[in-house]
Amino acid sequence: MRMAELSRRSGVSVPTIKYYLREGLLPAGAVTSPNQADYGNGHLRRLRLIRALIDVGGLSVAAAREVLGAVDDPSVVGHDLLGVAHCAVVPTKRAGRDTEEWLAARAEAATVVERRGWHVSPNAPALDLVADVIAAARALGLDELLGVIDGYADVAETVAEHDLGTVIARAQRGDTDDEMGRQALMVEAVVTGTVLGESLLTGLRLLAQEAASARIFGQTAPSVG
Amino acid sequence: MRMAELSRRSGVSVPTIKYYLREGLLPAGAVTSPNQADYGNGHLRRLRLIRALIDVGGLSVAAAREVLGAVDDPSVVGHDLLGVAHCAVVPTKRAGRDTEEWLAARAEAATVVERRGWHVSPNAPALDLVADVIAAARALGLDELLGVIDGYADVAETVAEHDLGTVIARAQRGDTDDEMGRQALMVEAVVTGTVLGESLLTGLRLLAQEAASARIFGQTAPSVG
Repeated sequence: MRMAELSRRSGVSVPTIKYYLREGLLPAGAVTSPNQADYGNGHLRRLRLIRALIDVGGLSVAAAREVLGAVDDPSVVGHDLLGVAHCAVVPTKRAGRDTEEWLAARAEAATVVERRGWHVSPNAPALDLVADVIAAARALGLDELLGVIDGYADVAETVAEHDLGTVIARAQRGDTDDEMGRQALMVEAVVTGTVLGESLLTGLRLLAQEAASARIFGQTAPSVG
Repeated sequence: MRMAELSRRSGVSVPTIKYYLREGLLPAGAVTSPNQADYGNGHLRRLRLIRALIDVGGLSVAAAREVLGAVDDPSVVGHDLLGVAHCAVVPTKRAGRDTEEWLAARAEAATVVERRGWHVSPNAPALDLVADVIAAARALGLDELLGVIDGYADVAETVAEHDLGTVIARAQRGDTDDEMGRQALMVEAVVTGTVLGESLLTGLRLLAQEAASARIFGQTAPSVG
């Protein structure tokens, strides 16, 4: 298909498609004449994946490029792929990660992981993120938030079981896409599950909070439906 | 204290403090001479709050300004405050929210909320976010992700109970800060709990995923501790 049709079917504007081509997120189409290229269903699917990562998941273009590179790399499989998805979701650079207070928070995060019996890499970026939260909560005297870490960890375990379950279900599915093998579909499921699952959990948590708040504060909001 | 001391004690650089002053996130200090101002513990606490919102929570400067404005506004209380925190966490503008597919996903999100018996505003920004995820998952054929929405919703309810519990515990706490009343502390707990809790949940989910993945894929990562 021509770029105009690719734009229409994906809902992505032509200038944005050109931007993704320039940034190397979308592979070039097959050149059919000096001014035209032909795009296939693989391009359409890739555009939907890019939108999911950037628009819904909130990834930067650079982080999306990293994730897509791993999706395209057949040597990145299973457990390693999760690492790539995690690095994309967690901002790695952050100031203030050298203070005494932060290092104490980092040790506390490691203690939580040890207490849960979770075997994770000592360099997992998510450990730094948890340390950031602990350090910020301590600085603000928000002891109540620190008190629910184990409650949150219980919940995180349940979510992780759901997440891995979806990947396994995907891998066992009979059908495969015309242009993608089973491995590529599973890979895609890992990264989109991590990134989209994040936004899904955020949205549902906020809705559940609103419902609980309305109940507790005695205010009624109109029911949706 | 002088700005240099405020910088040292908060860990925020002087140029960044000046930027927050210009952007109206941090109130001006008491002018002591044409070139100097004096800052109090309230400024120190506010700087820590700004860092928590922007650096740990990932809010934009504009979103942080909105949240801080609500914290400072005594007329914004209880349930309304949650709305402000939610608008800050969820990106409101997003392209592609007018297609037939998206509107169907939006209706599906409303059905989930109705099924859970959650009373929420029909204009809740989180409903749009859930719809974004549903639409993206449908476009990518990720039916497995859609299959775990109710599992995620169970988890979201548990997290929301923890969240509201921390706010109530905060409100009932005996001690109050020198420069802040009980109401202001509670308000702060709502917004920081929403924003920091988000990052905490993200971090713990990724760690639990890594642990579950290592177990399932039969790879062992070194234990942290």
